[in-house]
Amino acid sequence: MTVYAAPLREMRFVLHDVFGVADKLTALPGYGDATADVMDAVLDECAKLCEGVLFPINQTGDAEGCTFKDGKVTTPKGFKEAYKQYAEGGWCGLTADPEYGGQGLPEALDCLVAEMIGSANLSLGLYPGLTQGTILALGALGTPEQKTYYLPKLISGEWQGTMCLTESHSGSDLGLLRSKAVPNGDGSYSVTGTKIFISAGEHDMTANHVHLVLARLPDAPEGVRGISMFVVPKFFDDGKQNAVACGSIEHKMGMKASVTCVMNFDGAKGWLVGQPHKGLAGMFVMMNKERLFVGGQGISQSEVAYQSAVAYAKDRIQGRAATGPAHPDKAADPIIVHPDIRSRLLLARSIVEAERALTVWTHMNADISHKSSDAAACQHAEDMVGLMTPIVKAAGTGFGSEITNSLLQVLGGHGYIREHGMEQLVRDVRITEIYEGTNTIQALDLVGRKLGIEGGRLFTGWLREVEATLKKLDGRNDLAEFTGPLKDAVEKLKSVTTWMVEASKTDPNARAAAANDYLRFFALTAFAWMWVLMIEAALAKKNDDADFANAKLNVGRYFMQRVLPQIGGLDAVIRAGSKPLMAMAEGAF
Amino acid sequence: MTVYAAPLREMRFVLHDVFGVADKLTALPGYGDATADVMDAVLDECAKLCEGVLFPINQTGDAEGCTFKDGKVTTPKGFKEAYKQYAEGGWCGLTADPEYGGQGLPEALDCLVAEMIGSANLSLGLYPGLTQGTILALGALGTPEQKTYYLPKLISGEWQGTMCLTESHSGSDLGLLRSKAVPNGDGSYSVTGTKIFISAGEHDMTANHVHLVLARLPDAPEGVRGISMFVVPKFFDDGKQNAVACGSIEHKMGMKASVTCVMNFDGAKGWLVGQPHKGLAGMFVMMNKERLFVGGQGISQSEVAYQSAVAYAKDRIQGRAATGPAHPDKAADPIIVHPDIRSRLLLARSIVEAERALTVWTHMNADISHKSSDAAACQHAEDMVGLMTPIVKAAGTGFGSEITNSLLQVLGGHGYIREHGMEQLVRDVRITEIYEGTNTIQALDLVGRKLGIEGGRLFTGWLREVEATLKKLDGRNDLAEFTGPLKDAVEKLKSVTTWMVEASKTDPNARAAAANDYLRFFALTAFAWMWVLMIEAALAKKNDDADFANAKLNVGRYFMQRVLPQIGGLDAVIRAGSKPLMAMAEGAF
Repeated sequence: MTVYAAPLREMRFVLHDVFGVADKLTALPGYGDATADVMDAVLDECAKLCEGVLFPINQTGDAEGCTFKDGKVTTPKGFKEAYKQYAEGGWCGLTADPEYGGQGLPEALDCLVAEMIGSANLSLGLYPGLTQGTILALGALGTPEQKTYYLPKLISGEWQGTMCLTESHSGSDLGLLRSKAVPNGDGSYSVTGTKIFISAGEHDMTANHVHLVLARLPDAPEGVRGISMFVVPKFFDDGKQNAVACGSIEHKMGMKASVTCVMNFDGAKGWLVGQPHKGLAGMFVMMNKERLFVGGQGISQSEVAYQSAVAYAKDRIQGRAATGPAHPDKAADPIIVHPDIRSRLLLARSIVEAERALTVWTHMNADISHKSSDAAACQHAEDMVGLMTPIVKAAGTGFGSEITNSLLQVLGGHGYIREHGMEQLVRDVRITEIYEGTNTIQALDLVGRKLGIEGGRLFTGWLREVEATLKKLDGRNDLAEFTGPLKDAVEKLKSVTTWMVEASKTDPNARAAAANDYLRFFALTAFAWMWVLMIEAALAKKNDDADFANAKLNVGRYFMQRVLPQIGGLDAVIRAGSKPLMAMAEGAF
Repeated sequence: MTVYAAPLREMRFVLHDVFGVADKLTALPGYGDATADVMDAVLDECAKLCEGVLFPINQTGDAEGCTFKDGKVTTPKGFKEAYKQYAEGGWCGLTADPEYGGQGLPEALDCLVAEMIGSANLSLGLYPGLTQGTILALGALGTPEQKTYYLPKLISGEWQGTMCLTESHSGSDLGLLRSKAVPNGDGSYSVTGTKIFISAGEHDMTANHVHLVLARLPDAPEGVRGISMFVVPKFFDDGKQNAVACGSIEHKMGMKASVTCVMNFDGAKGWLVGQPHKGLAGMFVMMNKERLFVGGQGISQSEVAYQSAVAYAKDRIQGRAATGPAHPDKAADPIIVHPDIRSRLLLARSIVEAERALTVWTHMNADISHKSSDAAACQHAEDMVGLMTPIVKAAGTGFGSEITNSLLQVLGGHGYIREHGMEQLVRDVRITEIYEGTNTIQALDLVGRKLGIEGGRLFTGWLREVEATLKKLDGRNDLAEFTGPLKDAVEKLKSVTTWMVEASKTDPNARAAAANDYLRFFALTAFAWMWVLMIEAALAKKNDDADFANAKLNVGRYFMQRVLPQIGGLDAVIRAGSKPLMAMAEGAF
């Protein structure tokens, strides 16, 4: 059986000791209440919900799955009740505007709440995750009437929000979508089309569904510049049902308790959200939030896999330590004595801790960008969020797959059978590499759009921060084993970035050919930065808790010495360029 | 839907053009009939069986799975009939001794047959795969009576063979096993114990089961030196059932049509096979064959995933080529124009083709070691099999997971739903990294036992072969882009091997800490060698088929330029040594 205890101490360390989030945010308008004590209390409360309510139905939810009959979806046993507790606890509206019933707390706290919820029950957590995106999009683009009507019910969790983008022929390329919206003459529209892969599209946990749907107006230009966004409720105010229905649900590799629907809009009544033909930009308001959320899903599965593998590795005895019996009283040593087992555990931990820190840092920047009254600070913070969103999403989920797969192996054959729950983590996390923009779409966003903005302003802004860290710690001999590799990685990253940008001047495929490896390179470098910041913070507290600081030192060393050197191979692969990929004729595949 | 057509042309290229297998083997006693024509006919026949009979029930077999009721296992619909065709076709005994009804064909052919069968239906193919191991162990160690009694029925496929090793507390560490065998005084033994994870332990496709069981005699020393092997039939000659029964079956991540049993031996009557207390050595007779077989399973899933992803990538239109529309007549370009898609396909193909060649080369060496009358040639061939077995197993299956996962991504969300079949490949192949010795056990076998034999005789013997290739091709400017990277990789491999062996003189954990990365490094270098041999063979035929040769050049270049450079990162990680793994206290995890 998998085990999970919310890693509260690690979370507090990142929030308070590494970044001093409360100090930074309470100074901003609207975040006056977000003190360290409040944040700690929220995390404690969330841990109780996750450990006591959500986690116990994770494995049973997978075994049972969702069922579809007569247009209705039934969620697994216990989900309805657990969701109710979740909603009543106010978790759907943690960061939402207090004007509509939200709690107005910072994203930097919310991302840790989301990680816990994902660890406890990835499927269940996805339902309100979608609602959060809907809240954000309507909050940013909705009319005052739309906000007043929809937001309170979404924030209370009484209603479910969804994102209806994908059509069977139109996934990564939304320009191909065909759904239509025709004006009814009364300010409303008739929306018609079939959407697929709609998470939470229909189920029995909420009284109503609020669909955000992308469709084309009659006068729409072709491609992505002709897409508008509509809000389409399942039920109207008078209790009548709209012409939207779930046609079927998917049978998937994992996430079986999170329903994935085909949604048929058959002249469903909807209302325009935002400007005509600007729907994609509107959708991106929620998509960026969702992308960071999905990155956190990857971390969440790595964390619970780590905890479960550690428990098994300490309990399972098999073989002897190479240095002689570590537990001579037992018939064999616990497998945690073996280098391979330790390496898998340390890989997981060194990545998870860096990812968690990077996620908090990115969300803290989101908070600053939303609230700061200093325009330059806002811009810089927004730049950092823009730069890091594809990295947090793709690295969090890519490593999520790698790590859960690697930790399944710790359990040997026991990892492959369903009883132990490890294989569920591998199956569940696999979708996170795909949805909200595949990881390659993220990598293309990084090397194309994000690096391209104003001649690399985002990248330069980030380098300034990293170099400030290095400058500050220059002369700290006790940190040299960490700052040295970071400095080296940053130099290599700058060099390979320049190489790629230069190559792309003559080769239109250069950036795309480098994209995935480049994103991984960047992520590892960003993680190295996080490790330097974490080691610095841990050493500052060494007198309070030497064991904690020592563990940080050991995990950080593992990262610097056995993970970061991967960039050498990535560097060579990137510089091989696009030719080896593009030379082969289509017919030769 | 996944697609599969047996890659006959690739197989013939490796057999005939790259290695001239028939020329080499027909000269050996017993293989006079194994001409190129005979091999081609066998491959053709196997392709028909795979494409027409086994592949069509692969996805339905996964959906239905095996069921267990009242001690009986029912295989999915169609399996019994398909297995019957398989057995009646003589496929169970392709390499077996003609004296007992086998066809006596070479392993170098059998490994290609096994790959096809695995691609078509991994679950179904595992049943006779187990039987083959049983045939081998009984053939090598059984008494004349045991051979006469069991082999003909196993070879005809009428009976199922199994390997009963694992117990719940004893997996990688077989020294811990507790099953007992007590002499009955009539030459037979009473075998008692519970075995878990027994593939094919019980089912409805064969008339009888022949279990090879590891157990301890009453006077057995502790540990692995006190284990004996017994043959325990399910039914006796008189039709009476032995005291062996299936207690339950496992619910697994994948391989759902291949049953995995808990087997209870409750004073079951069995007979000793081989010497008392030498059962583990006996089991290894079949285990080496099974390990190579499992490596082939990994390749088989990569191959069918490749074919399926190519079909999707040519059909699915989404986005435009970076160089401008490639198919302006369509609403978008097929996704095969995108660098990332090509990179995933080329990775798969460059690994699969190298693995297939390495597998054939290793099995050809097995054939030579079995049949050659030249003692030195036998020893060298046996050395090559010993060295390559862990690499073929661990790399074939490790890349099998990586590649199927990477190719699932080509299908985006469609890859995650069950309908398309890609996610089944990911789930099915995952077990191959675990069974027949986990991939870490393989890596430890390589860095410990195999490199340790007589001061590195196996490694030196292999280097001689590679260096002979390089010497022969010295001055071939048209091959320099391939021989250059191979030479570089070989030098780096020699250097890191020396480093590791030196380090292990003072650090007992040094080899284990390096093991997995070292095996991957070695595998990539061996693949580079295979690519040089394949390119040489393809260029020799360039006038016959320029397209084939060009494709080989392009795939080979991809390997050399975008895959092999990974060794740079691996080298650095290996040289970081064991300290970053071993420093952390157990309690700090």
